[in-house]
Amino acid sequence: MDRRCNRRDFLRQSSTIGAGLALANLGNIVGATETDSNTAQKLSDDKTLRIGFVGIGVRGSCLLKILLELEGVQVRALCDIREDRVTRAQRWVEEAGQKIPSGYSKSDTDFKRMCETEDLDLVITATPWQWHVPVCVSAMEAGKHAATEVPAAVTLDECWQLVETAEKHGKHCMMLENYCYFRKAMTILNMIRKGLFGELLHCEGRTQENWIRENWHIFNSDGTMGWLGEHLAKRNGNPYPTHGFGPMAIWANVNRGDRLDHLVSMSSKSRALKLHAEQSFGKDHAVAQQAYLQGDANITLIRSVNGVTFTLYFGGQSPQPWSPEHKVQGTLGTCIGELFDYDARADGWIQAKVYEKGSRWANYTNYAETYDHSLWKALGQKANKYRAWDWSGAYDYLMLYQLVNALRRNNTPPMDVYDAATWSAISELSERSVANKSSVQEVPDFTKGKWKNNAPTDLAQV
Amino acid sequence: MDRRCNRRDFLRQSSTIGAGLALANLGNIVGATETDSNTAQKLSDDKTLRIGFVGIGVRGSCLLKILLELEGVQVRALCDIREDRVTRAQRWVEEAGQKIPSGYSKSDTDFKRMCETEDLDLVITATPWQWHVPVCVSAMEAGKHAATEVPAAVTLDECWQLVETAEKHGKHCMMLENYCYFRKAMTILNMIRKGLFGELLHCEGRTQENWIRENWHIFNSDGTMGWLGEHLAKRNGNPYPTHGFGPMAIWANVNRGDRLDHLVSMSSKSRALKLHAEQSFGKDHAVAQQAYLQGDANITLIRSVNGVTFTLYFGGQSPQPWSPEHKVQGTLGTCIGELFDYDARADGWIQAKVYEKGSRWANYTNYAETYDHSLWKALGQKANKYRAWDWSGAYDYLMLYQLVNALRRNNTPPMDVYDAATWSAISELSERSVANKSSVQEVPDFTKGKWKNNAPTDLAQV
Repeated sequence: MDRRCNRRDFLRQSSTIGAGLALANLGNIVGATETDSNTAQKLSDDKTLRIGFVGIGVRGSCLLKILLELEGVQVRALCDIREDRVTRAQRWVEEAGQKIPSGYSKSDTDFKRMCETEDLDLVITATPWQWHVPVCVSAMEAGKHAATEVPAAVTLDECWQLVETAEKHGKHCMMLENYCYFRKAMTILNMIRKGLFGELLHCEGRTQENWIRENWHIFNSDGTMGWLGEHLAKRNGNPYPTHGFGPMAIWANVNRGDRLDHLVSMSSKSRALKLHAEQSFGKDHAVAQQAYLQGDANITLIRSVNGVTFTLYFGGQSPQPWSPEHKVQGTLGTCIGELFDYDARADGWIQAKVYEKGSRWANYTNYAETYDHSLWKALGQKANKYRAWDWSGAYDYLMLYQLVNALRRNNTPPMDVYDAATWSAISELSERSVANKSSVQEVPDFTKGKWKNNAPTDLAQV
Repeated sequence: MDRRCNRRDFLRQSSTIGAGLALANLGNIVGATETDSNTAQKLSDDKTLRIGFVGIGVRGSCLLKILLELEGVQVRALCDIREDRVTRAQRWVEEAGQKIPSGYSKSDTDFKRMCETEDLDLVITATPWQWHVPVCVSAMEAGKHAATEVPAAVTLDECWQLVETAEKHGKHCMMLENYCYFRKAMTILNMIRKGLFGELLHCEGRTQENWIRENWHIFNSDGTMGWLGEHLAKRNGNPYPTHGFGPMAIWANVNRGDRLDHLVSMSSKSRALKLHAEQSFGKDHAVAQQAYLQGDANITLIRSVNGVTFTLYFGGQSPQPWSPEHKVQGTLGTCIGELFDYDARADGWIQAKVYEKGSRWANYTNYAETYDHSLWKALGQKANKYRAWDWSGAYDYLMLYQLVNALRRNNTPPMDVYDAATWSAISELSERSVANKSSVQEVPDFTKGKWKNNAPTDLAQV
């Protein structure tokens, strides 16, 4: 049940991308380097970042390939439980003009050996969810910075583990939440910073996936449960909060002048997973007979200490298109609509709207150019080339660009370990709330008070 | 601060309605009668409905004028604290070819005298919120059916009062929730009944108003608080839940096979009202100095005993357009978007989308004709004429048509006293939840178990 990298079917949606740019033709872009002279000048004295990469499946491959596009990066070690993936990725690194990296695939936990034996500055993990914290902790304990796919952690204990390990060893841990780099998310950030909406009052975000249609690790083709299916069978809350919450957290200065105070969460009944099991394997099959806890819809309400509210929707299993709808409501204006910025005028998308005055919505497109974010102005043209590699290639590029360059300059990455912990903590907190009839859950202050003095981020570092 | 009847600025949005059809030219349509021969045949033996009308301001005037268009209606009595409104409305009734009705405007509670002395079948109230229950209770105690503008009741006690009075006196009490008659709301109802979305899992609805821009009874022009301002200053929850919730309740068979079990609610900070007071009257003015409780955003999560979840948003004060966005999520499909159906393709509106299969949304317009509701097919052409009187004229017509004809046939109105109580109860329940840090609130079963055997409604009676 493997999938192509371009999981959003985006090639089907548009005729603007020629087949020559599709995934197989990586050679067209591999080897490109930073050519902006200002950037090159600023970075000239920076060190090379030595990277180890864990988990080179669909998602990891995309990240790794984009990483190989960045200046000042050496991929020194690769780790995956499947040796063929390591071998394939070693070839990509070699094709990018680098030394063939060491390979690690002896066991589930071979990443530990990698962290302990390799000279690395940064370890990146794109493994299934439950391996994110073990890899990051191993990395930081061995003196490496860490970066992880979303969600950074599954449980509250794991969130604390990330924070405590990072603090103890003085290492960074960034969650790779690429939704924060959507052009529209960053334009809205810019609109907020420029005061268009006044004081922020309320935000809404969705993680709306179509995992069943996309065969995304729910069941394996042999009728066993996939790793994602295991999570959805045993948990009930918002297991995947960060796509919906990340952009809102940046907009609303969560952990940077404000912090999350408490939340309540509610789930609908669970239907889709059992139906899918029955349709795929028959009613008598083991996966059709077992119980599934995760509700087909989950909604979490979160309130900050400054009185901002957040509505966070999760729907992963139901038949509905991937659709990251968001809303921002302030004292001077409001915006609403699909956060994704690619092909956004087409019928298949919910057009974003902005309100400042008058009686009706204005089209977001009226604002897009005026409020385009400085990062997109500087690097958008280059970033957009990577849309041909994956639906999220442009965002991955900008995110990895900022991560790599922050670490090369010994700066804190654009999103830190407190963001990773706070955004991921919504999972277990929502599960606890759902299990107790939507009872209120306090959100821990992972920053231990530092949120009061942390400056807001504009994600503007070039 | 009075306003024209067409409060949604809809005339500004469209050039399709000529000035000759605007409110002042009522004579063009007044006096029209039912011409459909089937309808006339079915109704031939029915009695005339004698009506008393209380509260003839902006909203009441619209309802009264449409009432005068219906066959089998006699408006016998009119009541308003302002005598000039009674006099004006008496003229409308006379112009419609009926006897001049009695007028009541001696005091705030002159409706009691009306209910006790007049021979009426039905009393309709379009007063400020806090008068709805007193009028309905007076009517039912005097042996009249009652119908009320939304919300039917402000407090839980009032909800019970409506139910108990209706049961004790064997009278009907219908809340006039015209959003249930939006063409799109009824088309979606039809799509649900036809199984397009499979089993219902989750619904979302919004009451999103722009009351400040519309000068809708928040402050009076002399600097005193308006009746709506009083509510918003002293309460904090969802004070106006039924526009958002009504259509969802019909879709999801609330009180008709399912019932609401519990809810939690959360409000953002309150900013808009104080800002508006400061800007209108200066920072030192009394209305700028006082406290305002109602948060600018309120979100309520409700769960039914059958496991369906509802997200209900309220935002009345913030600068944002009136925008009744809804969502329906089922086991086979999903739809989302603006519920309003007028001018829905224009830029100023959020286009509705439907998902059944494939990777992206389809336009709702692809489904609109196929799933058009039988009531709209039968009476839509006539109903649409009343859009020229008010933005909601078409819906008001269909709603009053069903109410009047149900009572003329001694049938239960399309929405009953249990709907009125259940939908309105969200107000105090949400306030209690907000006041207790989003604690869970049980929703009373106003039907006392009858929900289990009540049949779903299709709102199809012609």
